[in-house]
Amino acid sequence: MTLDDARELFPVLRRYAYLNAGTFGPLPAAVGEIMREQAALDVERGRSGKPYFDAMMELRAAVRARVAALVSAQAENIALTASTTDGCNIVLAGLGLGPEDEIVTTDAEHFGLAGPVFTSGARVRVARVQHLPPAETVATIAAEVTERTKLIATSHVLWTNGHVVDVHALRRETGVPILVDGAQSVGAIPVEVGELDFYTVSGQKWLCGPESTGALYVRDAERLVVARPSYLSQQSFEPGGRFVPTAGALRFEPGWVAVGSLRAWAAALDLAPAWRFDRIREAAARCRERLLAAGLDVVTDAGQAGLVTFRPDGDAAQVAQSAYEQGVVVRDLPGTGWVRASCGWWTSDEDVDRLVAAVA
Amino acid sequence: MTLDDARELFPVLRRYAYLNAGTFGPLPAAVGEIMREQAALDVERGRSGKPYFDAMMELRAAVRARVAALVSAQAENIALTASTTDGCNIVLAGLGLGPEDEIVTTDAEHFGLAGPVFTSGARVRVARVQHLPPAETVATIAAEVTERTKLIATSHVLWTNGHVVDVHALRRETGVPILVDGAQSVGAIPVEVGELDFYTVSGQKWLCGPESTGALYVRDAERLVVARPSYLSQQSFEPGGRFVPTAGALRFEPGWVAVGSLRAWAAALDLAPAWRFDRIREAAARCRERLLAAGLDVVTDAGQAGLVTFRPDGDAAQVAQSAYEQGVVVRDLPGTGWVRASCGWWTSDEDVDRLVAAVA
Repeated sequence: MTLDDARELFPVLRRYAYLNAGTFGPLPAAVGEIMREQAALDVERGRSGKPYFDAMMELRAAVRARVAALVSAQAENIALTASTTDGCNIVLAGLGLGPEDEIVTTDAEHFGLAGPVFTSGARVRVARVQHLPPAETVATIAAEVTERTKLIATSHVLWTNGHVVDVHALRRETGVPILVDGAQSVGAIPVEVGELDFYTVSGQKWLCGPESTGALYVRDAERLVVARPSYLSQQSFEPGGRFVPTAGALRFEPGWVAVGSLRAWAAALDLAPAWRFDRIREAAARCRERLLAAGLDVVTDAGQAGLVTFRPDGDAAQVAQSAYEQGVVVRDLPGTGWVRASCGWWTSDEDVDRLVAAVA
Repeated sequence: MTLDDARELFPVLRRYAYLNAGTFGPLPAAVGEIMREQAALDVERGRSGKPYFDAMMELRAAVRARVAALVSAQAENIALTASTTDGCNIVLAGLGLGPEDEIVTTDAEHFGLAGPVFTSGARVRVARVQHLPPAETVATIAAEVTERTKLIATSHVLWTNGHVVDVHALRRETGVPILVDGAQSVGAIPVEVGELDFYTVSGQKWLCGPESTGALYVRDAERLVVARPSYLSQQSFEPGGRFVPTAGALRFEPGWVAVGSLRAWAAALDLAPAWRFDRIREAAARCRERLLAAGLDVVTDAGQAGLVTFRPDGDAAQVAQSAYEQGVVVRDLPGTGWVRASCGWWTSDEDVDRLVAAVA
């Protein structure tokens, strides 16, 4: 598959310089077609009967296996969720922390992680990394760890400044369990869960799946309470709700995923070419260099992931809106004055040039 | 709209005597067509830009308003969820109960309610109502209430025996806050939340919406902690996650709902005729009488809701499977030896006759 072939998969690229995979990836035509087909099947054949449920359970297993392969894990350590937020809530509620415990997080987290961290009831220590170069991130986070720290909760790629956090080094150097928000990493950079404890996956961003798809990697299911059970959490239950949990991470699955979404996400996961990460790196580097050459204040360091954040001249929301009107899709980051471009494996040099022309 | 007109909305009825709205309602052709259209739009135009997000927020408000009207509530008391399970988890986690507190529930609850009740950490008292006539249900549940009872958690229509619980009487007579699982009630019988405290809604069952749609009514948002926050829960937040909650019940919304699902669910909610509840009552009565006349042991009392449960001759799972092969869609209820038929406003006399022929 060439870059031109890749771009043919995504009709939206004919219309826009679509640089917002950090929110929603472009949806491949083939993935949309599967969703359309399943909607028609559900209307015609109904959503019941043993064959329907058996196929649904097989699809869940197939998606788990694909996600596991993507992050070098085993399928039994993967729970299908509806979002990274779901994954963070499952972990934070399941750890049973109290006011004597501490969580270390950063000042550059999305509310999908920060909210669950706050509501856990633990004391929260915030490492200030938003305005630091990436080389200083690990030490800055590690410096907040105390004897009371029960969890480090951080993104792998910070959604604001786009910097990569060396989460493996952080885990190794602190010895503290870590929850990694993978919303901006899985599908954007190579990810291996290795010794990490918890890792969230977003399906609808860099993986180009339908909305409300995601996953959670759990290294050891026995270390988490099922704090938010669903029908899928139990093998059997008594009146009053006492239950025998499903084996492995499956017990944490919060609910039904539509058959159309499962089929569509599986197809999306199969679509990316082997060179995906090389092209993302290349496109992000080009984007960064062109913005710098145009005299813009670029926030993101060289050699990070797919996000390139910059401070435009003027109001960020207005710049994003004006870019949209010129056919360039990026987003502003409220409260920062920054605009963020997401460079995918489908991003062409021309997309980048259109961005620079629209914002410079 | 006549019954024949109504049946024309649902192509699956040409194929099956589809009697399983208690799991998934039949999907109207018009609703499937909206899902297909939105999938095409998402492929062509992308899932970004201010118009896209503004339309999505308006759709959320439109769906909340429709659900509110359906249960005689105000829109600000409705949170959009992905399921009844979601709603139950939001309430049980948000009440902050401990081992000194008690919850009263029944032995006829789905795990979607029973699981969250159990994991709340409170002591659980189980009222045995599964094998009682409906006239004895309220007194039997109320008899389990003690001074320590912080919540009654019960279905409005029990998913196993199909009996209606007079939840208003229960609330009035005990004075205890009540969480009502509305999975088998909203869309099957008239529902007014009145003095009830928490009420869950399933979108994909009697309301014929897409999968992973639902809602939660919360009478007083200030009485619940946001235990499972999402981006939608906050108006603003600080690093570390402390946040200003959204006004009203919206703060409990656990996440994104796909634009296609919102549009489709709104359309489904607009589709039901004024006579919906009359026809459901009529179809269920006919179903019950025909099964009795065929010599079957009918579990469900007369004059309940849309569910009609019976004990077939032979293994329930095999009977359901054999019915399916004869074009009749019903489900067995594991652990009970029972088969359950769901009679909707689209159910014809012939559907009922086909069921009786398939199982008698």
